[in-house]
Amino acid sequence: MVRILNEGSKTVRKKLEILRGAAGAFRERGFEGAGMRDIAEAIGMAPGALYYYFKSKDDLLYFCQDYSLDRLLVEAAAIEKRRLPADEKLQLLIEAQLSCMLDELGGSAAHLEFHALPSRLLRGIIAKRDRYEAILRRIVEAGVRSRVFAPLDPKLVSLAILGAINWTIKWYRPGGGLGPQEIAETFSRLLIHGLSGRPTK
Amino acid sequence: MVRILNEGSKTVRKKLEILRGAAGAFRERGFEGAGMRDIAEAIGMAPGALYYYFKSKDDLLYFCQDYSLDRLLVEAAAIEKRRLPADEKLQLLIEAQLSCMLDELGGSAAHLEFHALPSRLLRGIIAKRDRYEAILRRIVEAGVRSRVFAPLDPKLVSLAILGAINWTIKWYRPGGGLGPQEIAETFSRLLIHGLSGRPTK
Repeated sequence: MVRILNEGSKTVRKKLEILRGAAGAFRERGFEGAGMRDIAEAIGMAPGALYYYFKSKDDLLYFCQDYSLDRLLVEAAAIEKRRLPADEKLQLLIEAQLSCMLDELGGSAAHLEFHALPSRLLRGIIAKRDRYEAILRRIVEAGVRSRVFAPLDPKLVSLAILGAINWTIKWYRPGGGLGPQEIAETFSRLLIHGLSGRPTK
Repeated sequence: MVRILNEGSKTVRKKLEILRGAAGAFRERGFEGAGMRDIAEAIGMAPGALYYYFKSKDDLLYFCQDYSLDRLLVEAAAIEKRRLPADEKLQLLIEAQLSCMLDELGGSAAHLEFHALPSRLLRGIIAKRDRYEAILRRIVEAGVRSRVFAPLDPKLVSLAILGAINWTIKWYRPGGGLGPQEIAETFSRLLIHGLSGRPTK
């Protein structure tokens, strides 16, 4: 995280803008199919200028995953510490992750293409992802312990929640009918109260 | 479906056995990274013998998606027709999809790699996938109409359910701690009754 912050926020903002643009190229050609040239074209940038920000697609991929996990880890740690019941914490976490993935990154598939990273970069990303998933699991576990939640397996529940959220990358279209906030509200109601449960509001 | 059935059930059974074996190679090297040679090695088959069943990785991919969607469509249509409340239909559908993906295909990533297919094959697969998703959505819609379910957006709910289920491909390991049946039970309870809801049994 230090490395990224040291790059200065203007560069980071520009990189995020590129990622949001790249998301469109990945949607159209698949993550493997879209090259640096397609990405440059999708964002109306000269390929040379794109290479100034990202040396390669691996570099772009690494930034996308590293930046988003750093951001999510900061937010998740803050949510975990708050004095709130588990269901409210979970709702905040679902909102934070969907907002990061869909708003800030524009629903970019790069966020989830772990296998595409070279293994020396992958290790650090997987360690961060595991820390994020551990926070989610602890929130679910705490809810089960305090009987805010039913006694379901916290690991399976966490994987179901991550699945529902991560899968949005496959179908979300920026500017389409449903915004990240609406998606977060319905997902929270579904996961916390269930299809047969009463809505929260 | 007719084409596949005409191949005779022995060939289909052998092809399914290959797919289950290939799942391990995809998990280890990523879907893009695993070639026909890696697949042959993973299943202890001579490459020539593998080519007898599948001409290429595209061919394997197409069979995997086409076969599983045909099977799921038959099961989903039968579930939709049954005279059961929507929550029971949904539970049966979740069980059917997880059993097909995790038991029969061994959790193979090939099931979800739509983008990797050439577009002439992709069209038919997407049409079948859309038909399957439409059945799921109709079951959710019927449950909302009959007030078995809360008034949540059936499209978003269906996408969340598919996300939770499809994401299992990313973490499921055959012979690991959790079997398809256990996963299906917890997912059904979570999605139908929610984390704060009462378990069904």
